[in-house]
Amino acid sequence: MKAFQDFYSDSVAHCYGCGRLNEHGLQIKTHWDGDESVTEYTPRPYHTAIPGYVYGGLIASLIDCHGTGTAAAAAYRKDGRDMDTEPAYRYVTASLHVDYLKPTPLVPLTVRGRVKEIRGRKVIVESELIADGVVTARGEVVAVQMPENFR
Amino acid sequence: MKAFQDFYSDSVAHCYGCGRLNEHGLQIKTHWDGDESVTEYTPRPYHTAIPGYVYGGLIASLIDCHGTGTAAAAAYRKDGRDMDTEPAYRYVTASLHVDYLKPTPLVPLTVRGRVKEIRGRKVIVESELIADGVVTARGEVVAVQMPENFR
Repeated sequence: MKAFQDFYSDSVAHCYGCGRLNEHGLQIKTHWDGDESVTEYTPRPYHTAIPGYVYGGLIASLIDCHGTGTAAAAAYRKDGRDMDTEPAYRYVTASLHVDYLKPTPLVPLTVRGRVKEIRGRKVIVESELIADGVVTARGEVVAVQMPENFR
Repeated sequence: MKAFQDFYSDSVAHCYGCGRLNEHGLQIKTHWDGDESVTEYTPRPYHTAIPGYVYGGLIASLIDCHGTGTAAAAAYRKDGRDMDTEPAYRYVTASLHVDYLKPTPLVPLTVRGRVKEIRGRKVIVESELIADGVVTARGEVVAVQMPENFR
């Protein structure tokens, strides 16, 4: 199954967080799991806060790109369209909020998201970051549809 | 002038965002400029959202580590202590909020922060991200003093 990010056109596939064409980046991949969206990512050994724990900026990055990807997929789904149809829906982040609930161990991570609101050009996505079965952070992304002239 | 991060003990100097011992990381450096704290960072060419613009996760990371560094420095300043004295004050992020006001061009960036509140073990730092003289993002970090048993 193709991930949301695999449908992005080449012109918007260079994001450090989620672009499949950014060879230095995280290249996250997000899928639907029922009404939830899921991203799995294994931090690199140097993504540390203190040794053994993940630094907050990576967590923010995962929640951010997971959110914009989910926003795009949700817009297609709302309109009953496949993600490979035109016009393309792409979203940028208007705001990002992360609550760090406890230290996140440096293990394979899962982000699970839900669409809290979808209206007009705005989608709000709530997410949880899960490490070893424990929710260690919660995030909210307010995503807005990318202006046409920005691609 | 030594940066805030240059005073961190080796055991907390491996953060991907601000640790001087993390050779893969951003190694940001923060200083006082009067009552404001300042971090300057030049994004790498691959830190893109779309080509020519900075991806949001980097902005979140800069605001995050700028905030925890400022929190530590503010705690020392409040107590009239130099940063190389014991016991060390180190802070972790309880929450991070970023408002992305406009696209951030991939140019040298400045983060300027102010202490909004300092009370007990908590410091709230407000920051602006500036690119080419324009504020492109605003952030707020709620930082809490790192528990002793976490180092």
